[in-house]
Amino acid sequence: MLGQSVGRLLVVLQKVNQPQDLKPLSMGELLQLTEELRSEIIRVCAQNGGHLASSLGAVELIVALHRVFNSPRDRLLFDVGHQAYAHKILTGRKEVFHTIRQEGGISGFTKVSESEHDAITVGHASTSLANALGMAIARDTLGEDYHIVALIGDGALTGGMALAALNVIGERKPRLIIILNDNEMSISENVGALNRYFREYQTKKWVQETQKWGRQVLEGISPRLFGLVDRAKEAAKLMLHQENPFYAWGIRYVGPVDGHDLPGLIHILEQIKELDGPTLLHAVTRKGKGYGVAEEDPIYWHGPPGFNPQNPIKVSKGYTWSAAFGDAVTELAHQEPRLFVITPAMREGSGLVRYSQVHPERYLDTGICEDVAATTAAGMALRGLKPVLAIYSTFMQRAYDQIIHDIAIENLPVIFAVDRAGIVGGDGATHNGVFDIAYLRTVPNVQIAAPKDALELRAMLKKALELGGPIAIRYPRDNVEKAPEGAWPEIEWGRWEVLKEGHRAYILAFGKTLKYALEAAGDDPQVGVVNARFIKPLDKELLKRLALAGHKLVTTEDHQRMGGFGSAVLEALNEMGLKPDIRVLGLPDRFFEHGSIPRMHHEARIDAEAIRAALAEMGVEAPTLAEAAHHPKPQTR
Amino acid sequence: MLGQSVGRLLVVLQKVNQPQDLKPLSMGELLQLTEELRSEIIRVCAQNGGHLASSLGAVELIVALHRVFNSPRDRLLFDVGHQAYAHKILTGRKEVFHTIRQEGGISGFTKVSESEHDAITVGHASTSLANALGMAIARDTLGEDYHIVALIGDGALTGGMALAALNVIGERKPRLIIILNDNEMSISENVGALNRYFREYQTKKWVQETQKWGRQVLEGISPRLFGLVDRAKEAAKLMLHQENPFYAWGIRYVGPVDGHDLPGLIHILEQIKELDGPTLLHAVTRKGKGYGVAEEDPIYWHGPPGFNPQNPIKVSKGYTWSAAFGDAVTELAHQEPRLFVITPAMREGSGLVRYSQVHPERYLDTGICEDVAATTAAGMALRGLKPVLAIYSTFMQRAYDQIIHDIAIENLPVIFAVDRAGIVGGDGATHNGVFDIAYLRTVPNVQIAAPKDALELRAMLKKALELGGPIAIRYPRDNVEKAPEGAWPEIEWGRWEVLKEGHRAYILAFGKTLKYALEAAGDDPQVGVVNARFIKPLDKELLKRLALAGHKLVTTEDHQRMGGFGSAVLEALNEMGLKPDIRVLGLPDRFFEHGSIPRMHHEARIDAEAIRAALAEMGVEAPTLAEAAHHPKPQTR
Repeated sequence: MLGQSVGRLLVVLQKVNQPQDLKPLSMGELLQLTEELRSEIIRVCAQNGGHLASSLGAVELIVALHRVFNSPRDRLLFDVGHQAYAHKILTGRKEVFHTIRQEGGISGFTKVSESEHDAITVGHASTSLANALGMAIARDTLGEDYHIVALIGDGALTGGMALAALNVIGERKPRLIIILNDNEMSISENVGALNRYFREYQTKKWVQETQKWGRQVLEGISPRLFGLVDRAKEAAKLMLHQENPFYAWGIRYVGPVDGHDLPGLIHILEQIKELDGPTLLHAVTRKGKGYGVAEEDPIYWHGPPGFNPQNPIKVSKGYTWSAAFGDAVTELAHQEPRLFVITPAMREGSGLVRYSQVHPERYLDTGICEDVAATTAAGMALRGLKPVLAIYSTFMQRAYDQIIHDIAIENLPVIFAVDRAGIVGGDGATHNGVFDIAYLRTVPNVQIAAPKDALELRAMLKKALELGGPIAIRYPRDNVEKAPEGAWPEIEWGRWEVLKEGHRAYILAFGKTLKYALEAAGDDPQVGVVNARFIKPLDKELLKRLALAGHKLVTTEDHQRMGGFGSAVLEALNEMGLKPDIRVLGLPDRFFEHGSIPRMHHEARIDAEAIRAALAEMGVEAPTLAEAAHHPKPQTR
Repeated sequence: MLGQSVGRLLVVLQKVNQPQDLKPLSMGELLQLTEELRSEIIRVCAQNGGHLASSLGAVELIVALHRVFNSPRDRLLFDVGHQAYAHKILTGRKEVFHTIRQEGGISGFTKVSESEHDAITVGHASTSLANALGMAIARDTLGEDYHIVALIGDGALTGGMALAALNVIGERKPRLIIILNDNEMSISENVGALNRYFREYQTKKWVQETQKWGRQVLEGISPRLFGLVDRAKEAAKLMLHQENPFYAWGIRYVGPVDGHDLPGLIHILEQIKELDGPTLLHAVTRKGKGYGVAEEDPIYWHGPPGFNPQNPIKVSKGYTWSAAFGDAVTELAHQEPRLFVITPAMREGSGLVRYSQVHPERYLDTGICEDVAATTAAGMALRGLKPVLAIYSTFMQRAYDQIIHDIAIENLPVIFAVDRAGIVGGDGATHNGVFDIAYLRTVPNVQIAAPKDALELRAMLKKALELGGPIAIRYPRDNVEKAPEGAWPEIEWGRWEVLKEGHRAYILAFGKTLKYALEAAGDDPQVGVVNARFIKPLDKELLKRLALAGHKLVTTEDHQRMGGFGSAVLEALNEMGLKPDIRVLGLPDRFFEHGSIPRMHHEARIDAEAIRAALAEMGVEAPTLAEAAHHPKPQTR
């Protein structure tokens, strides 16, 4: 097992800085390189955390790609981009690889602006095929000549946009290569009928019915490709055959082949790279390959936090908002038999492992297709269920039309448990959930709430079930204090909560930024703090009262300033004809990369310091410590 | 040909008010009913305009469905919903059918709130399968027992969310029936490899390899189903066979059958309705069936305006914004060899017929998959092309994540020609393009412009090509004066245009609402009008100047008030510390149904009258006619 090799000298890798350095290596050296790449990936993931298991599973594929193709001239697209660590190491980023996902370091995904070898900027699944199609059309339109290869996992292939792109590719037939990296996993186990089909397909013996072009390819292919792949119990032959799901799409299918057989992969890529039209190579891999614990439990080791590579044990990530949601909904489902939870392939991330075990009959994982997940919820709501769609803010962008068209128009009772709202940290720009307030609040019938703690989350979920209509409850990627089981406090829907009184100014904050507001207010009797937990409907009554009392106002949010909560407050104030002195704090009009969340919040000027600065701009200076000590403790309710 | 039968007495239809009235009818009467339904559909479409061709093509399918199933207990889902006119007539809406798409009348699509027989509220394609899945899960979870049938066109099946839903259905295997209404058309001709596959499939002779359950079904099926379908030159047999594209999805496939053979359809539906799990019935139909002109030119007759049913000739719809875009882009492509136009199945609607003929090598129709269209544009932009994505505002909602994730993060040069922005009229709530400003402006790097006329559209398109970055240019569903060919005026990007000076107030309006602003201002020297043609970037300089000069301001937009243009103005003013008296006019927080656009604008309080009322609220009263006559004509620049 490779676990023991961690720390070994990187003999071959020492010689490799750019893809062309792979060309002169012997097969023995290449095989050694795959081991060394694994060591490096394990070492750095142990240190930083990261997408360990999928990157380990793609090492041979990536080495083979860089041996056979010529990046950056040839374009290598990695779907999702989290399996591309070996690619990063082999393309000039060996020395900075240890900075992956760290502030100022390299991204955990491929990123066009990071390297000329990164063909696409990515983080969400299922985009590589449409990108490859566009690139192939561009190449052919401009009369250029290079290869385009998209590596896509079987999980990402459950996404509708990947399937629909296959459809266009199959019709237009541009020259490109799709490698299906089939490891039977998304982050959780894969779902979907196509996936089951792949399984059956691999273990069936098929009549060989090669066609003309097929024979030509076959002649050059080494017999070792005809060997067994790890899991398949029966012989899986190289098939160039109509009876596979890609034939209907007009896409040439080759496979399945062993995705860890480096010589075999190099050989077949050499063969198929000159074929015209689109070709799909089906490669079977094992997630976590070469690292025992990761092979055994690829779900945990998909994206672990740091660990000791010599003694890799699972650690608890602490009690997260996701867990708080999962616990709440598991309990609620006992009270409400019509509750039904849907996840688009995010069982673990959304805290639903326990729910899925306790209520398997009221649980649906749709695979990576947020649009289908949302409209399936609509169908359920139309027929008497109370669906809860657990979805990350950033992925909900993929269900936007479905939220409007299938849910909001008829005001259907669908609850959106919007996880990872706000800046998310290590995953960076592609994953920040910083648009949801803007894109949701403009939609009629949609309500938006954000709890301050796990107890308030429970209160909101319960109340939302009673109210009906589409309701989004957003919470951040963070830990939170666990709420007592069985606690279901009442909440006055649409009413904000004054957490601290102030006599000159109020900070209107919700969710994650509340802690900054409380920190900024401190013991200062001038400054009050409001838990502005309902964004739609806004608590116009309280807002009016504060404005009429002459208070200065600061709004804060972990969301784009444009169109967000502060903008909603400005609209409401203008509608009411009120013109208080007000500062709107939110993320500026740019994308934020990966890095620590508090550091990003500081940079975005939404932290306690920025709030104090905004107050000071309006003439509300922070008292010195001495002054503060003279004042009595402010009221809290 | 049925054209002659228009006006004939509706002998059978007279007896039919509800679906149960079909049960006692003889086959002869049912056949007569299909003719009468066609007469009615042609008569009303001739009067109101409407989705003629697809509704004619689905008459037998709908009659068969209502004969075999029991709506509303059984749920009949019509994908897109525009082919369901016969369904509307047969389900209690015969007497109001003539009001279709008219203000206060029934909707042109199925609508849950309109009738208990309408299973889904719809207008966008590809949603029926996910809805059906959700309904089937709800039924089974609640222990209920009814049938669920989704009728989906082959065009809608090119949508990723339909394909992804098949994947989930095939795995979960709920009992439901999918009818593939295969007419080889979306609105234009269909594209996509699956479609070509259907064509080949129908004309091939297959080895019959029925399985156990297949044989059982076959035994009961009348031999007439084995007959030829219209177009197929060889025998197309009822196949229950692995070699079809649905097998991979684990969905039982039956077909192809003749979708106009009423007795056959009734027979086979009776057979398959009791089968477990999901079944797909492949029915081949002809768009426009039974109405000669519509059969011959189903593209024009897809959704014609009113016509004379006795002498159906094509009429010009006038010169539209779509045509203005199409003309401009056709010319531009001669100047810019890297320009490439993409449409998601909207060639006619987007004014691209001429472009697609003049520049076929730089034109791509992706089929109904907006997400793929957007990301394909990203791939093109990454490799040196300058893609223009022609897309309706309402359908762009389906590419939202792709705009953020695949285009905006890397600031790629993709131009969005956003058609049908604002209230669209007859198509109603599902098609109103009233969220785009809100959901786009919150995204960093995205710019938004709206031209006042066709000439300004040309100037913006040309400038956008030079500037790069993602740029959305939005224009309404309306006619517009044609701009001279070859005219490419310069435009100062980001600068608004003062159309009329005023000494007390300014109306900030763009695009369609400009005409209301000009009407409201009239000759009143108090009131100025600004063509606020850039929404992002905003012209803060002019805004500041107007505010500092003490002018009252009114913003107007054909878009939701929440999060829209007015909201952007409020944000900018607050940032600049300016507090002018300002009224924000926009659509209120509700959905608007079908009806005439001016009437909707009046109801929404964004028309000239509403603008004058807003001005009056701020003390700027309209001068009487006599007063106005005394003032000199205001300056215009």
